Amino acid sequence: MDLNADLGEGFGRWELTDDAALLRIVTSANVACGFHAGDPATLQRVCELAAAAGVRIGAQVSYRDLAGFGRREMDVPARELAAEVAYQIGALRVFAEAAGSPVAYVKPHGALYHRAGRDPVQAAAVVEGARLAGVGVVLTQRGSELDRAAAGAGLRVAGEAFADRGYLGDGHLVPRGAPGALLAPEAAVAQAVDLALHGEVTAIDGSRTPVAAESICVHGDGPDAVAVAASIRAAFNERGIDVEAFS
Amino acid sequence: MDLNADLGEGFGRWELTDDAALLRIVTSANVACGFHAGDPATLQRVCELAAAAGVRIGAQVSYRDLAGFGRREMDVPARELAAEVAYQIGALRVFAEAAGSPVAYVKPHGALYHRAGRDPVQAAAVVEGARLAGVGVVLTQRGSELDRAAAGAGLRVAGEAFADRGYLGDGHLVPRGAPGALLAPEAAVAQAVDLALHGEVTAIDGSRTPVAAESICVHGDGPDAVAVAASIRAAFNERGIDVEAFS
Amino acid sequence: MDLNADLGEGFGRWELTDDAALLRIVTSANVACGFHAGDPATLQRVCELAAAAGVRIGAQVSYRDLAGFGRREMDVPARELAAEVAYQIGALRVFAEAAGSPVAYVKPHGALYHRAGRDPVQAAAVVEGARLAGVGVVLTQRGSELDRAAAGAGLRVAGEAFADRGYLGDGHLVPRGAPGALLAPEAAVAQAVDLALHGEVTAIDGSRTPVAAESICVHGDGPDAVAVAASIRAAFNERGIDVEAFS
Amino acid sequence: MDLNADLGEGFGRWELTDDAALLRIVTSANVACGFHAGDPATLQRVCELAAAAGVRIGAQVSYRDLAGFGRREMDVPARELAAEVAYQIGALRVFAEAAGSPVAYVKPHGALYHRAGRDPVQAAAVVEGARLAGVGVVLTQRGSELDRAAAGAGLRVAGEAFADRGYLGDGHLVPRGAPGALLAPEAAVAQAVDLALHGEVTAIDGSRTPVAAESICVHGDGPDAVAVAASIRAAFNERGIDVEAFS
Repeated sequence: MDLNADLGEGFGRWELTDDAALLRIVTSANVACGFHAGDPATLQRVCELAAAAGVRIGAQVSYRDLAGFGRREMDVPARELAAEVAYQIGALRVFAEAAGSPVAYVKPHGALYHRAGRDPVQAAAVVEGARLAGVGVVLTQRGSELDRAAAGAGLRVAGEAFADRGYLGDGHLVPRGAPGALLAPEAAVAQAVDLALHGEVTAIDGSRTPVAAESICVHGDGPDAVAVAASIRAAFNERGIDVEAFS
Repeated sequence: MDLNADLGEGFGRWELTDDAALLRIVTSANVACGFHAGDPATLQRVCELAAAAGVRIGAQVSYRDLAGFGRREMDVPARELAAEVAYQIGALRVFAEAAGSPVAYVKPHGALYHRAGRDPVQAAAVVEGARLAGVGVVLTQRGSELDRAAAGAGLRVAGEAFADRGYLGDGHLVPRGAPGALLAPEAAVAQAVDLALHGEVTAIDGSRTPVAAESICVHGDGPDAVAVAASIRAAFNERGIDVEAFS
Repeated sequence: MDLNADLGEGFGRWELTDDAALLRIVTSANVACGFHAGDPATLQRVCELAAAAGVRIGAQVSYRDLAGFGRREMDVPARELAAEVAYQIGALRVFAEAAGSPVAYVKPHGALYHRAGRDPVQAAAVVEGARLAGVGVVLTQRGSELDRAAAGAGLRVAGEAFADRGYLGDGHLVPRGAPGALLAPEAAVAQAVDLALHGEVTAIDGSRTPVAAESICVHGDGPDAVAVAASIRAAFNERGIDVEAFS
Repeated sequence: MDLNADLGEGFGRWELTDDAALLRIVTSANVACGFHAGDPATLQRVCELAAAAGVRIGAQVSYRDLAGFGRREMDVPARELAAEVAYQIGALRVFAEAAGSPVAYVKPHGALYHRAGRDPVQAAAVVEGARLAGVGVVLTQRGSELDRAAAGAGLRVAGEAFADRGYLGDGHLVPRGAPGALLAPEAAVAQAVDLALHGEVTAIDGSRTPVAAESICVHGDGPDAVAVAASIRAAFNERGIDVEAFS
């Protein structure tokens, strides 16, 4: 099982993620590319750290929205969105390659992740951006529009699940703000183990729900984030679950 | 002799340069990379046009300054500046390569051009950015700090001269705002021919001054810019001066 | 009848609207406030020109989206949107007051105009922003959510109609991109006269449709925009229709 | 003696200053206005907190430089800079006045503070921006170009000193990066007391140097900043030094 987290989400004077600590835990680093976070010097530093740690680098592409941290959905026309995605990947690729590691995959950030998950037009634009930039793997939830668009374009999809998010009985996430949307640390660790061992979660209606995942997302911001992520990694080690980058 | 011009200097709704017309004239296109101008969709469009026209693509890198169009000098620390330069080149490279043409060279824009021409620290940062991004050629004035820094780092320098700018007797440009800084269209055409045939200009003090140039910059903005550029190209054709990308 | 147009929609090096020409035609100037267009020096210049011409100044507030010119809908949370609207009005107010003219009204731009016209949450946020900034008049279409929100909050609403946009039989605009969305210049002039004399338009289904308007929007960008606007003003003069700012 | 600190220096998702804690210590709040930090919702929140705490609000104006946090000097032409300063003050004023407190003064931030302190052109532009926005007080170091420009334009200047910065024998600050530039916490507290009681500091050459100050700047970022600021306030209380906003 792969563990992924968002890294490099500061901007200039502002820091957010404890990149060095997360790189001791995860096997895939979703590196911010400058549109919601991530100034160029941060991209460079994080790529160097990730390459040195043997952690795979992915492009965490976003809407152009520093003020909203990429969390506000935007009606970006498809052609513009594809170009924005490609632009971000290209910028990151310079630092990844200079550090000796390629950009291995693309994962949309925040509102773009959610929008591309349900909107086939924006999903296709993200895929076109990845294709333009020569990246052949997309990390996203199985069954989403982005999954379909990527597969349809011949890209490989790595299925993603979330340790600390509640699931509905149909395999979708409980919407943020609704009861059960966020799991407490212990429950998040248990759900990660469940995903790795059984490919299932216990949904908020109590049902056992299959969630196909090659990678589990752990969060890197928030006061306890690194501790929770480390607990997941430790729990995997205890149970003999291999933690390695998805193939 | 190579002719170069700045292209793609719009941003979103705003247009500035007549890219299609310029691509019928120049042999090297300095494409804006997003920091002073150039949204991603424009980068893509201009790279596609340039590649189709057989015009070589260069990265016109800038300070991060949309509001000032990159014309305001900034005291960017060297490490940040190098990363900013590399970021821009990487972003452009995606579109250049998708269009079938590599990014062949780097030319700083506006205030960065002037600052890197006289400040060895910023010159070295531009060179470091080019090196990070794997671009081995810098287009700039011979004798500048950027020329020295690039040569010292093992990069190739293509010497640049200006058709429509007056020169001092020592080979430097007459500062903008000073009398003689800008040449009228006919004088610009004549100076371009002089540069191509003799490697010299007549400076504002009347002296003949050598200016080593493999490329002449023609300007693409302003109401008469395209007409002047076309006149230079026509004058070269008449006199049998080959117009081709610098080697 | 009032005539309004968008002014000051350049940004730094880029120009868009012929502000001086429009100020000889319109009686209300919707001045861009910096979020989709309008650098501070442009705000200052346009306010000085408008005040000198006796044209009333309104705040043309927008999403924070220079790259998209404010034409991309954004899911901005209500509290943030209200603060963004107030911020823009406050910035403009400095220049309007320094020029001797207050900010008399607020009109949202582009995607925010359309979104606030149908989304009561964003409509309320725009109204809250106006209230925070002490502006008591909103310029928008009668019957829209923004009309309702403004009236509900005790603000005055000035009803707006469009000279060059087709109307449906129910009084809504024909959506952009659909047949009949945009009127040719002659039809736009005729519709403006129709609105001023009868408070009605001929909808695309041929029906006569009432459109309550105290102000008609004329467009300032595009190659023929100023000529069309001038023709409307001339047609009003011929027919004895007073052109003056709404009360 | 007045105590001032920079507040509201987050941006969107990013936080920096502990605004609530600082408002229990200082009597003047330099509120970031959006150009180096400070999204509109943060401006609103900080103004509401400051007004509720009875802390005076000043506009902490900056170069337009989010990526560099306003710490990179920029050659902004005077007219543009004056407009940028006025724009920022106007934006802040909306929130300050809505909270029941006016914008009482202007203090430039970071690189603009230093540049306007020694460059009469940028100093005059800052003063012109304050004047445009109707703010009549500038907070800056006595003897600086900004002091002179403000006094020459009829604005009132409040003299500022720094608790935690070393001074040269001539009353200038030890440049950042040089030995003695930053004082340890205990020394900063002692220097603040010295400034308040005697109007002097002990410079790094051991001499006693007069520093005329009506306000002492305490820093709000950094891990110990709030603790140091609180120690200064406590030391003032112990010694019976009144802490109140400058008149």
